[in-house]
Amino acid sequence: MDKALKEITPKSEDFSQWYTDVVKKADLMDYAPVKGFIVIRPYAYRIWEFIQADLDVRFRATGHENAYFPLLIPESLLTREAEHVEGFSPEVAWVTIGGGEVLSERLAVRPTSETIVGAMYARWIQSYRDLPVLINQWNSVVRWEKSTRPFLRTTEFLWQEGHTVHRTEDEAVREAEQQLEAYRGLMQEVLAIPAVAGIKSAGERFAGAVETYTLEALMSDGRALQAATSHFLGQNFSKAFDIQFLDEDGGLKYGWTTSWGASTRLLGALIMVHGDDRGLRLPPRVAPIQVVIVPIGKGGERAQIVEYCHALKKRLDPSTRVMVDDRDEFTPGYKFNDWEMRGVPLRLEVGPRDVAAGQVMASRRDGGAKFAIAASELERAVSVVLDEIQHSLYEQALANLNAGSVEITDYQEALARDRRGFFYGDWCGEEACAAHLQEETSMTIRCLPLGLSPAWTGCAVCHQPSRHRVVFARAY
Amino acid sequence: MDKALKEITPKSEDFSQWYTDVVKKADLMDYAPVKGFIVIRPYAYRIWEFIQADLDVRFRATGHENAYFPLLIPESLLTREAEHVEGFSPEVAWVTIGGGEVLSERLAVRPTSETIVGAMYARWIQSYRDLPVLINQWNSVVRWEKSTRPFLRTTEFLWQEGHTVHRTEDEAVREAEQQLEAYRGLMQEVLAIPAVAGIKSAGERFAGAVETYTLEALMSDGRALQAATSHFLGQNFSKAFDIQFLDEDGGLKYGWTTSWGASTRLLGALIMVHGDDRGLRLPPRVAPIQVVIVPIGKGGERAQIVEYCHALKKRLDPSTRVMVDDRDEFTPGYKFNDWEMRGVPLRLEVGPRDVAAGQVMASRRDGGAKFAIAASELERAVSVVLDEIQHSLYEQALANLNAGSVEITDYQEALARDRRGFFYGDWCGEEACAAHLQEETSMTIRCLPLGLSPAWTGCAVCHQPSRHRVVFARAY
Repeated sequence: MDKALKEITPKSEDFSQWYTDVVKKADLMDYAPVKGFIVIRPYAYRIWEFIQADLDVRFRATGHENAYFPLLIPESLLTREAEHVEGFSPEVAWVTIGGGEVLSERLAVRPTSETIVGAMYARWIQSYRDLPVLINQWNSVVRWEKSTRPFLRTTEFLWQEGHTVHRTEDEAVREAEQQLEAYRGLMQEVLAIPAVAGIKSAGERFAGAVETYTLEALMSDGRALQAATSHFLGQNFSKAFDIQFLDEDGGLKYGWTTSWGASTRLLGALIMVHGDDRGLRLPPRVAPIQVVIVPIGKGGERAQIVEYCHALKKRLDPSTRVMVDDRDEFTPGYKFNDWEMRGVPLRLEVGPRDVAAGQVMASRRDGGAKFAIAASELERAVSVVLDEIQHSLYEQALANLNAGSVEITDYQEALARDRRGFFYGDWCGEEACAAHLQEETSMTIRCLPLGLSPAWTGCAVCHQPSRHRVVFARAY
Repeated sequence: MDKALKEITPKSEDFSQWYTDVVKKADLMDYAPVKGFIVIRPYAYRIWEFIQADLDVRFRATGHENAYFPLLIPESLLTREAEHVEGFSPEVAWVTIGGGEVLSERLAVRPTSETIVGAMYARWIQSYRDLPVLINQWNSVVRWEKSTRPFLRTTEFLWQEGHTVHRTEDEAVREAEQQLEAYRGLMQEVLAIPAVAGIKSAGERFAGAVETYTLEALMSDGRALQAATSHFLGQNFSKAFDIQFLDEDGGLKYGWTTSWGASTRLLGALIMVHGDDRGLRLPPRVAPIQVVIVPIGKGGERAQIVEYCHALKKRLDPSTRVMVDDRDEFTPGYKFNDWEMRGVPLRLEVGPRDVAAGQVMASRRDGGAKFAIAASELERAVSVVLDEIQHSLYEQALANLNAGSVEITDYQEALARDRRGFFYGDWCGEEACAAHLQEETSMTIRCLPLGLSPAWTGCAVCHQPSRHRVVFARAY
C-alpha cells in the first residue's frame, strides 16, 4: 500500500501521464468542479508565493507599484482596440446577470486588463510630469480554453500583469526589454531554468502589440514552453483609449505603452524541467520545505532520536525551511518516497548510530551518494549543499537545453529527431511558411532569438532567401 | 490653484462628502467604468499589502497555509446549503456564456467560497489524520450591491477567506475564536483601531453559520463598522458537502467547519477612524511613506539643501520608508498639504538654517508643535517618534470609542444623541424587537459583546425581561 500510493508512470514511458501523476500525487493541484479549472493546493501555492515575492522585489527596484483593477470589463471597452478584441473575444466568459437582473451591457471576466487599465490611465494622465506610470497587478484571469492541462493551460490562471505608459517610444521599448530581463532573472536565479530570449514573429504576437518579447524554455520532453512575455504596445492602446499628455514643449501627445506578464504556468515549467521518475525536484529557493529530517528507529530508542532531530532543526539557520517528519504512522521508506515525490532538496536521516556519533546522513534530491554531516557542522554544511543543489539543477537544465538545441537547414531534420528540441534555422519571413510548418509538424516559430543573425542558408521551410534566424519547436 | 487642488469638505460639515473627498484626493481609489466597482490605486494597495503581510504572519503562526480555489462556482454547488444560497443568491453575478457558447449550467462569480471549498474538502478528507485542514486564500469576490461606497461596500472587493475543518466541535469553536483574536491583533497593533468583540444575533449571522463572531469598530462620525468576522459553521456545510472522516474509533463522522474573513473594507475603517479635516492620518505600521523630507530653499542654496536631505535619508534605518520630496514644480506649502492629505505620519523640513545648525524641524501628523531634531540623533529620534505616533493614534481612537460608548435602558436615549455611538443596552432576544428598532431608527444589533452579562434593566426596545447585553448602533 505504501508504494502503490506514490507510484507514478515513468517519464520516459509516457511524459504526459507522468506529468499528470506528479501534479496530483505531490498534492500540487486538484481538478475543480468546472472543466478546465483547477484548485492550486497549498504546496504549489507556496511556490507561487516565492515567485511573487521575488518578482515584487525586482519590479519595485525599478519603480513599479502594485494596484488592483476590476475583474469585470464592459464589452464596449474590450472591443475598443481592434486587434485586441479579435484575439481575445472568442475566449471570453461573459457575465450577463447581476443581482437578479439581466445587465444592459454584458461584462467580460477579464482575459487580460489592457482595456480597463487604458481607460483609467486616460483619466489619470494629463502632463508629462505624470509619466512614466509603472503599475503592476496580481490577479486571476479567465480565458475559455478548449483543451486544458494543470498549470500549463487552464481556463482561469493566476498571474501578474504590468501596465506602463511612457513619454517616448524609446523609453517604452527599454521598459519592455527591462521587464523581460526581470523574468529572466527569476527563471535563472530562482527557478533554475535557462531560457532563450527573443521576439515573436508577427503571427505569434500578443493581440494589439507592436512587438512581443518572450522567454522560451525547453522542457525535458523536448517541447518548448513560453514562460513569460513582455509587450511593446506602441501607441495602439493609447490611441484606442485616448491616453494623451501635454508635453514640456506644449504639444498634446499620445503615450507609449507596454504590458508584461508571467503566470502560474511557471509551476508547470518547474515540474517539467526538473522532475524525474521519482517526482518533483525543487530548486531550494522555491522549495516550501528545503530540508526534511527523518528519524529512523523503533521502540525505546525512538523518542530519543526524535528529540535529537528536533535539536538538529534548532541548529539550522532560522531562515532555512526545515521539517522534522516524526509521524508515527509511516515507515521511513514511505517518508523517503513521499518527500522525494514532493521534491524536497535535502533529506537528513537520523538513526541510533547517528545519534551516538553526533552526525546525520544526508541525501540530495539532485542525485549522488549519501554522505555524513557532523551535527556541529550542520548549519554551514546545509547552507552550502542547498546552494550547490540550486546551482546543479540549473546546470542540468542548461545541459539539457544545450543538448536539445540543434541547427537545421531544412525542417525535415527536426522530424528525424521526432521534433524534440529547439531547432535553430533560417526563415524567409513569410507567415505562409510558418503556417505550412505548423500544419505539417505542429511546430511553430517560438521566437527570433535576440542577437542572432541568419546563417544565410535559406528558409528552412521553403528555401527562399533567409531573413531571420528563428527557433522552431513544438510548444505547450 | 495649489490650495484648491487639495481642498476637502470639513468632516464636521458633511462626513460623507469628506470621506469621498479624501479617498479621491489622497489618490486611494478611482471609480471604475462599471457602477459599484473601484480601482484600488497604488497608495491604497500598498496599505492593503501591509495588512496582508501582517495577517499572513498571524495565520501561518497558527498552522494555516494559503491556496487558491476557482473564481467560478457551478449553480448546483452554490445551492447545496439552504440558508447559504438564500443569503447569497440575490447578490450573485452569473457567467452564462463562455468561449462563444451558452453554458449548460450557469456559473456564479464567487460571492464567498464555502461551497466550492466544501466540495474539494469532501474529496481530500478521509481520515482523522487528515484533520485539521487549515487553509486561507486571498482573492476577490463579487456581490451585486444596490448602493456602494468606496472600500466600505463595493460590488467587487478584495479579501482573505479562511476555511477550516476540525475533528471536534470544541476545536472548531476555538479556531473561530482564535481567528477573531488574529484580526483584533491586526486592528489594535497595526491599524491602531480598537474594536468591540462579540457574537452576532441570529438575524445578523452569516448565511449558514451556527455562530458569527465579529469585531465592531466605531467610526469618528459615531457609526459602527463590522471590521472582520469569523464563523463557526457547525456541521451545516460538512453535511451539505459530505465532508466525512473515519475517526480513530472507526466511526464515520462529519467534520466541524469554520470560515473567517477580512477585506479591503479595513481601508475604509482606517480612513474614517483616523482621518481629519486635512485628510488621512496613517498609523506608521501601514504608512507607505512613514517620513517625508521636504527641502525649503531657493536659488543657489537649494542644491545644497536637497543634497543634505538625501544625506539625512541615508542616516535613517533602511527599513524606514522615507521619501525626499525634491520636486521643483511645487512650493513647500503645497507639499505640506499634499503629504498631510496622504497621512504621512512624520514630516521633516529642512531650510538653510537647519543645514547650518545640523538639524531638521519635525512635524507630527497626529498633532502638536514643530520641534527640532539634531541630525546626529535622527535615526533614534525618528524611530521613537514613529512608535509614539502609532501609539497616540490608537489612544485617540480608543478615547473616541470610550466617549461614544453609552449605556441606555431605552432606545430613545440613542435618538437624543442623534444615534451617534455604541449604545449598550439589554435585549429580550426577540428578532421582532431588532426589526422594530431598525425600522424606527436604522440602528441594528451590532453584537452581543463577549463577556458582558445583561444589566437586567429590561429590553431597551420592548422592556420585557432582559436576555442579552447588546450594542445597538447605526452601521456602515
